[in-house]
Amino acid sequence: MELALLYSGGKDSTLAALLLDEFYDVTLVTGTFGVTDEWEHARDTAETVGFPFERVDLDRGVARDAVERMREDGYPRNGIQRVHDHALERVAEREVDAVADGSRRDDRVPTVSRAEAQSLEDRHGVDYIAPLSGFGRGAVDRLVDATLELDVGPSDEIHRADYEGELRALLADRHGPEAVAEVFPDHEQTRVTGVRE
Amino acid sequence: MELALLYSGGKDSTLAALLLDEFYDVTLVTGTFGVTDEWEHARDTAETVGFPFERVDLDRGVARDAVERMREDGYPRNGIQRVHDHALERVAEREVDAVADGSRRDDRVPTVSRAEAQSLEDRHGVDYIAPLSGFGRGAVDRLVDATLELDVGPSDEIHRADYEGELRALLADRHGPEAVAEVFPDHEQTRVTGVRE
Repeated sequence: MELALLYSGGKDSTLAALLLDEFYDVTLVTGTFGVTDEWEHARDTAETVGFPFERVDLDRGVARDAVERMREDGYPRNGIQRVHDHALERVAEREVDAVADGSRRDDRVPTVSRAEAQSLEDRHGVDYIAPLSGFGRGAVDRLVDATLELDVGPSDEIHRADYEGELRALLADRHGPEAVAEVFPDHEQTRVTGVRE
Repeated sequence: MELALLYSGGKDSTLAALLLDEFYDVTLVTGTFGVTDEWEHARDTAETVGFPFERVDLDRGVARDAVERMREDGYPRNGIQRVHDHALERVAEREVDAVADGSRRDDRVPTVSRAEAQSLEDRHGVDYIAPLSGFGRGAVDRLVDATLELDVGPSDEIHRADYEGELRALLADRHGPEAVAEVFPDHEQTRVTGVRE
């Protein structure tokens, strides 16, 4: 069965890929608004961990709406959720049996409720799978430690492809760098550099 | 990492075992109230699918309470939930890193909320994992078809070890066979007979 997994190059979506690998033909798919080339980091990580990769182009208007929302809110949560919903829709339009993401049980964002999952499945004739949604934060951390090699660093230095880079760039472009600092507090980011043998 | 999976010999808990197998040392654990020997079916299925097996003895008082609740309700849901909660507690007391069950996204019972999962984890120092909770009914059915060989038949003929047999026996003993027919409507049950190559 063909499965398209929304992929950022981070530890959660990489672990999700490994969990599904034995049961599906997994392709890692990264969305881009065409604002930056950060999707290329996800492509490189996909190659490192040994999965096929595809890029999907997202609607720049969704990014603009998300950025304005984040600026109004003063925090990124609702904007990130809007972008994730849009990316899931775009991936579900593909010719696949199933779509998936790396969302975890304890994530605050993005989340996909049972009703939203069912709606996505019914409208697109695909299965929606969140393989990490039955795992809490501690379980994911322990699995990641046992399975993946990581780089950890500040979120403005570690390049991933989870929309944050593109949304930061758009936000800076429209409202200046101080708006970015306001919306996105400094946090640690991780990038996967390999799979442990 | 050592993981104990609550196991009935049915398709969901068998699929859960296969999903976790690459990441944990999985032991299949079946609870019994000592009312019938149905746990032996789970032991035999565990051997067929190639996992270590252990039995855990459950508190007969919990079964009696559950049976009375089901009789009052006229349906089994709340009684089954009570028994599942008790079994999870007993398994979490073991010397393991993680406990798991086969509950799915679309199951009405048993369910374990995020708050209940967190409470179980904090009190026992284990991870609670529901590997199928990110999969809907359709996705599980398709994975089962691709992965498992099954026997399907009426619920009073296919023997599993998901407490239903023992609760039916207790209910019949206390309130007669007509009480069993009232609480447990006829339904199809499946038993796993092998793993596809």
